[in-house]
Amino acid sequence: MKIKEYIDKLFHPKSIAIIEASTKIPWYIQGIIERNFEGNLYLVSKKEDNIFGIKCFKDISKIPDKIDLAIIAVNRNKLIDVIKKCIEKQFFNLHIFSAGLGEYDEKGIEIENEIYNLLKNSNTKAIGPNCMGIYSTEGRLSYSPYFSKEECKKRCVSFVSHSGDLTTRYVIRTNDYGVNFHNVASIGNSISLKFSDFISYFSEIDRADIIAGYFEGFSRFNELEGKILIDILKKNKKPILLLKGGTTSDGKRAVSSHTGTIASNSNLWNCIFKQSNAIKIETYEELIDSTIAFYFCKEYYPTVKSLLIITWSGGKAVLGVDRTINLGIKVPEIQEPTKTKMKSMISIGSISNPLDLPWIGRSEKFSEICKLAISEPYIGGVIFETYAPRQFDERYEIYFQNILKIFNHCKNYKKPFLMSLPFANIKQREKLKEKFIKYSIPIFPSIERAAKAFLNLYYFKHHQNNVI
Amino acid sequence: MKIKEYIDKLFHPKSIAIIEASTKIPWYIQGIIERNFEGNLYLVSKKEDNIFGIKCFKDISKIPDKIDLAIIAVNRNKLIDVIKKCIEKQFFNLHIFSAGLGEYDEKGIEIENEIYNLLKNSNTKAIGPNCMGIYSTEGRLSYSPYFSKEECKKRCVSFVSHSGDLTTRYVIRTNDYGVNFHNVASIGNSISLKFSDFISYFSEIDRADIIAGYFEGFSRFNELEGKILIDILKKNKKPILLLKGGTTSDGKRAVSSHTGTIASNSNLWNCIFKQSNAIKIETYEELIDSTIAFYFCKEYYPTVKSLLIITWSGGKAVLGVDRTINLGIKVPEIQEPTKTKMKSMISIGSISNPLDLPWIGRSEKFSEICKLAISEPYIGGVIFETYAPRQFDERYEIYFQNILKIFNHCKNYKKPFLMSLPFANIKQREKLKEKFIKYSIPIFPSIERAAKAFLNLYYFKHHQNNVI
Repeated sequence: MKIKEYIDKLFHPKSIAIIEASTKIPWYIQGIIERNFEGNLYLVSKKEDNIFGIKCFKDISKIPDKIDLAIIAVNRNKLIDVIKKCIEKQFFNLHIFSAGLGEYDEKGIEIENEIYNLLKNSNTKAIGPNCMGIYSTEGRLSYSPYFSKEECKKRCVSFVSHSGDLTTRYVIRTNDYGVNFHNVASIGNSISLKFSDFISYFSEIDRADIIAGYFEGFSRFNELEGKILIDILKKNKKPILLLKGGTTSDGKRAVSSHTGTIASNSNLWNCIFKQSNAIKIETYEELIDSTIAFYFCKEYYPTVKSLLIITWSGGKAVLGVDRTINLGIKVPEIQEPTKTKMKSMISIGSISNPLDLPWIGRSEKFSEICKLAISEPYIGGVIFETYAPRQFDERYEIYFQNILKIFNHCKNYKKPFLMSLPFANIKQREKLKEKFIKYSIPIFPSIERAAKAFLNLYYFKHHQNNVI
Repeated sequence: MKIKEYIDKLFHPKSIAIIEASTKIPWYIQGIIERNFEGNLYLVSKKEDNIFGIKCFKDISKIPDKIDLAIIAVNRNKLIDVIKKCIEKQFFNLHIFSAGLGEYDEKGIEIENEIYNLLKNSNTKAIGPNCMGIYSTEGRLSYSPYFSKEECKKRCVSFVSHSGDLTTRYVIRTNDYGVNFHNVASIGNSISLKFSDFISYFSEIDRADIIAGYFEGFSRFNELEGKILIDILKKNKKPILLLKGGTTSDGKRAVSSHTGTIASNSNLWNCIFKQSNAIKIETYEELIDSTIAFYFCKEYYPTVKSLLIITWSGGKAVLGVDRTINLGIKVPEIQEPTKTKMKSMISIGSISNPLDLPWIGRSEKFSEICKLAISEPYIGGVIFETYAPRQFDERYEIYFQNILKIFNHCKNYKKPFLMSLPFANIKQREKLKEKFIKYSIPIFPSIERAAKAFLNLYYFKHHQNNVI
């Protein structure tokens, strides 16, 4: 059976077994029951007869089914025995949650080696050990009860990661900004199914519009994975955002005690980013921002590397321009005759780019002036910075409608519109954020972070054009 | 009279006049009444007889007092006339709120030139035009009703800025993280009292423990200000955080339409940062973070440029280490015999630095292991990353108390403890933030931002040591 078929079963299992199921770690059971999983769910427990109303089998051998995904959460000393039984029963995929293995000590490395050999000589594959597992909206399972239950319709993100906690944070945070996922896999020490297997899978299936990954190191059982990954990425046509941990020597030390993978050298990664359309993501924050940007701006990739910046604060505008320019993005002055036309409409404020137009936010003129600037061909996209009001009253609603007009004008011109909404006045910011997300507006915490996301949109489009 | 005496009267006026007082811009009146201002408040209004129960004078000439601070909010066409009257009455300081002057157009420049000449030949000084004005907790006045009413006791920050809106954002944001201010001045186009006058004042008076400034450009009426500023900064012994806007050519264009000041060249600024202990702040976010760090860590400046990183997420730990190392800060591995001692206390997790200790957060062992690492002489400070819980229950309280133990251990060792509390689960984060602030714990949104603030603490200490 091909790896693609294994991964298909991992994300869309028809049968799941949880070994040892326990109310102490209830989330795997909850994450399946609460999502109305349509397949068969089997629990195995030596101690319990019944968990959440589901009968428990005393032993793996008793399960009357062929299992697509077995979730294994046992102490490391019991792992070999459990895995042998799963292989005997010809289970397709294992999710080895158990930690304290290759990443921890000599004993852990020994156990991991034995598991590797067992799996290698079998028809069973696995993710992990030391990982959180699977979240699949279509497959209706999730290792976390807090991930969105919404199936992605218009657009889908797929994500693979060496870090479980990072995956959890990332999914919850991007969910919170309106992003929906198709498939997510936290794969830990990756002794069987590897990072590259998932990237390959995502780049082949239809529903993964945007691919993202957090990578720490190549599996110590497959040192050629770098080469394989380059080949996959070279063929890939989709946006793929790659964040790499362990770029410094101390970071590599942290990698080795985290997933026990072999932190790779930077030359290889330079090659990867040079030879493919993969987008190099440098921080966790950038991963979040770029996911949001690609998700909402899929139809509006910029063709020009320049921004119009609209703010309500002269100082923040100046600083925003400086940072944007330092990223290599232009902030071009509005040219004649448009400039004069814009200037004739105000008696105070600045229209040269940045647009800083205090006092007229609620006037029809405000959106008209912005629209004039947006229509200029040398403007590639818009960053609009605003703050949450203290009151959502009628006066604010007029301003809000003005922003929507500007946003819609951008859409008509196929230019991305990115909203900078700094973290201030937190409760009201949450409300405003929700209002914007309803209109599919991507939100960032600063002009600089929005600008970096814009740059990644531009790079992807630019690469597409060059290849075509 | 010396400039120091003028600025003294500006921050601690015994008499204030508001010209033209109006209920349309009520905040200046509110910002004085609501704070139980102890001096005399005079309102001048042609239209109103009475505002908020205070009788209005019809004309400046009728005011029966010598005014320390006159706030002028009239249309630019009336400015010359009003200012002439204020000078005639020998008012000490004017705050010229009115905008649309040197920063806007030729006409504005002409008016500004005339104001400059009037003031130069008088005993009256001014801040502005085009600025928000004064916030003084001791003087009991504030241009914004939303600024903290708390007088600073233990420590005080003083701030001067060319941008009004940036000042507002900055004060509200840092207030929200527990910072209290002594004096704040938004000084706009600075045609009379200048940026350097305030820096000089702050560095001389006792109550300004930490000085911060947002600078855009030198006044076009005083091109030698750069030289003056260098001399002041060379003598200064206090931490002074300087953020400069307009470092790029497009940023300079934005400066010219914002405050009409002359964006200075970077050579001068390189000189300033080389020849003085002033700390170069590169972004608005860094200004906020470093203000918080200096405010809370005043007694705990690090002597070693290295960090212990404690997290609950392997992936975020790896990325945090990478970013910290890239900033030039060490993340040294814990040495023997402490390492073995620490390892003997756990059966899972990582203790090499970063410390990644899932599952034992509520155990006594958790704080004990961290304390062992903190005591090592090659550790300069601690960044602790955590997230807000979904529930503040008893179990969480045990973990919280563990964090406090670690924090207190840092205090005993005179090492700074910086908390990274990412923006997630926003409402609960607010609650947790409040809990930490009560204990004077400085809070940042990421490991990287905390690390940058740590670096600035280190630089200041390092400079102090070298000078002594």
